[in-house]
Amino acid sequence: MSDTVFPLVAVVGATGAVGREALAILADRSHPAARVLALASERSAGERIAYGRGEVVVQALRDGPFPACDFALFCATADIARTFAPRAVEAGAVVVDNSSAYRMDPAVPLVVPEINAEAIGTARLIANPNCSTIILLTPLTPIRQRFGVRRVVVSTYQAVSGAGIEAVRELQTQARDVLDGRPARPSVFPEPCAFNVFSHESTLDPSTGLNGEEAKMIAESRRIWNDPALTLIPTCVRVPVIRAHTQSALVTLEQPATEAQVRELLAEAPGVRLVDDRAANRFPTPLEATGGNAVLAGRVRCFSPTECAVMIAGDQLRKGAALNAIQIMDLIHTRSRTTSRARQ
Amino acid sequence: MSDTVFPLVAVVGATGAVGREALAILADRSHPAARVLALASERSAGERIAYGRGEVVVQALRDGPFPACDFALFCATADIARTFAPRAVEAGAVVVDNSSAYRMDPAVPLVVPEINAEAIGTARLIANPNCSTIILLTPLTPIRQRFGVRRVVVSTYQAVSGAGIEAVRELQTQARDVLDGRPARPSVFPEPCAFNVFSHESTLDPSTGLNGEEAKMIAESRRIWNDPALTLIPTCVRVPVIRAHTQSALVTLEQPATEAQVRELLAEAPGVRLVDDRAANRFPTPLEATGGNAVLAGRVRCFSPTECAVMIAGDQLRKGAALNAIQIMDLIHTRSRTTSRARQ
Repeated sequence: MSDTVFPLVAVVGATGAVGREALAILADRSHPAARVLALASERSAGERIAYGRGEVVVQALRDGPFPACDFALFCATADIARTFAPRAVEAGAVVVDNSSAYRMDPAVPLVVPEINAEAIGTARLIANPNCSTIILLTPLTPIRQRFGVRRVVVSTYQAVSGAGIEAVRELQTQARDVLDGRPARPSVFPEPCAFNVFSHESTLDPSTGLNGEEAKMIAESRRIWNDPALTLIPTCVRVPVIRAHTQSALVTLEQPATEAQVRELLAEAPGVRLVDDRAANRFPTPLEATGGNAVLAGRVRCFSPTECAVMIAGDQLRKGAALNAIQIMDLIHTRSRTTSRARQ
Repeated sequence: MSDTVFPLVAVVGATGAVGREALAILADRSHPAARVLALASERSAGERIAYGRGEVVVQALRDGPFPACDFALFCATADIARTFAPRAVEAGAVVVDNSSAYRMDPAVPLVVPEINAEAIGTARLIANPNCSTIILLTPLTPIRQRFGVRRVVVSTYQAVSGAGIEAVRELQTQARDVLDGRPARPSVFPEPCAFNVFSHESTLDPSTGLNGEEAKMIAESRRIWNDPALTLIPTCVRVPVIRAHTQSALVTLEQPATEAQVRELLAEAPGVRLVDDRAANRFPTPLEATGGNAVLAGRVRCFSPTECAVMIAGDQLRKGAALNAIQIMDLIHTRSRTTSRARQ
């Protein structure tokens, strides 16, 4: 890794929904990535995409050696990650992968910085969890640390952008079609998405009945919390929302808690913003979470001393994907600078 | 009550979302209500509204004696019901009230025909449960009868039309505004409803944290199932759907059940249609439930022998309101005809 203050960051899949968000975050917050390398498939090569006030030219991700860089943020498919992430590591980059390729690989840490930053260790390939897992665990972790969590029942209200930019266009086109009296023509999703709600489109395991999104939430939560016996009962559902996933969670605690205690933990939790105003009937919504860095949590209701309901909403392209990956990168970068200073 | 085969049916609140649906059902299925009386507030008087291939003229609901009729379907507010339902009964009508006015009155039966038709007895004022309660209990009742239900955790995905015709217009207008790059201007709902999800807008009890919709689901379910100790943990949420409510329910059973047994019960349950195709990833959706009489149920997943998840979708203007009320009327009408024939 370079010792310069400003690392060179490659964004793989720069033209996709998560890739664009990663570039936006790097530019918006004047991130110490002075230089970015936008990589995408051959067919996007040469395209100019926004980066801050300027633009970057997309380069093709080609066979052969991976371009020299300090960090590579993989915002592409699992197949792309399996092919190119090892090459990026070989070329000297630290890789943070947003796909599912390495999430269950015991040699690759699966990290949410607010929860298990220590798991990074000396790894040069780190996996970013699934968006729904990150958004669920970020607010629940402080509750777990204080009271213990035995079981989570969660129903999701997931935005279409989790399925990519084409899914956003499909929702917009269908909404207009329906408003104008034309039929909705599904293409990205198996069901009409405008003015409808449907079970998550990921591949369903016919024996368990779980779809891919639900299976990921269970396996990844158990891994991140290091609790293989955790009972997590998820129902993942798409709703006609552009961005930000919402979740209705019921948590069974090991120790009794009061609503006030849970609310206080959420108010102080890193990466979380408490939105819990009973007088105004204001609770987390995906619209309010959109574009923000915090996971919103609130509508805390204890149905018994050990049964606590919480509503959660988080921007799945930011904390659920690009932002989490950049936070991991920042942790490693800061540490490497500290280490190199200590060596001087 | 008249002995004629074709009773005269008054629809109170005929210009509202539920009233219009009641008229549509009466006309569509060539219901033996040959004559209907459309009643509404003074300001709608004289309006002509569709009834089958023809029209009916709306009459004002005025102080003074209630117009003579055999049945009065109240599709209006609780205030209207409290004022006019007793007068309608006095005038000789059997009243089915869709509002919350009488639902918790021990003297007034609260009825879902598939569940507790026997509760009607000789009552001349019957309460129609809240839409979310009807849609939840219709599929769960056969499961309860066979295996017993100890606890239900339910998160809802509720259509805007539950808040009336203006709410539908608000969703359509806001959707168009957002698509055209204009801001959404909420009026009926406290939050933008287009491309958003928010906690149900009904009045929230600051001490329990339950909103009105959730409190109704708990109280009415306990009453209809005659189980005051039932644990029901609801989270009621609005989604940008025009019609039909969806629910993600997790049921804790008293006796162990298999997925196949639960699916079989749902396939045979009155008023229910099983939609559970794992191979095609097809499960209940509000779009498929819209305009239909059946409550769709499926996506049956047992997480343990006594923990069973079910997805449910039902048209809340039909089975959730107008249809249920008309079914109650039909039961009473059929019985009265049988009784009068027996007397001849």
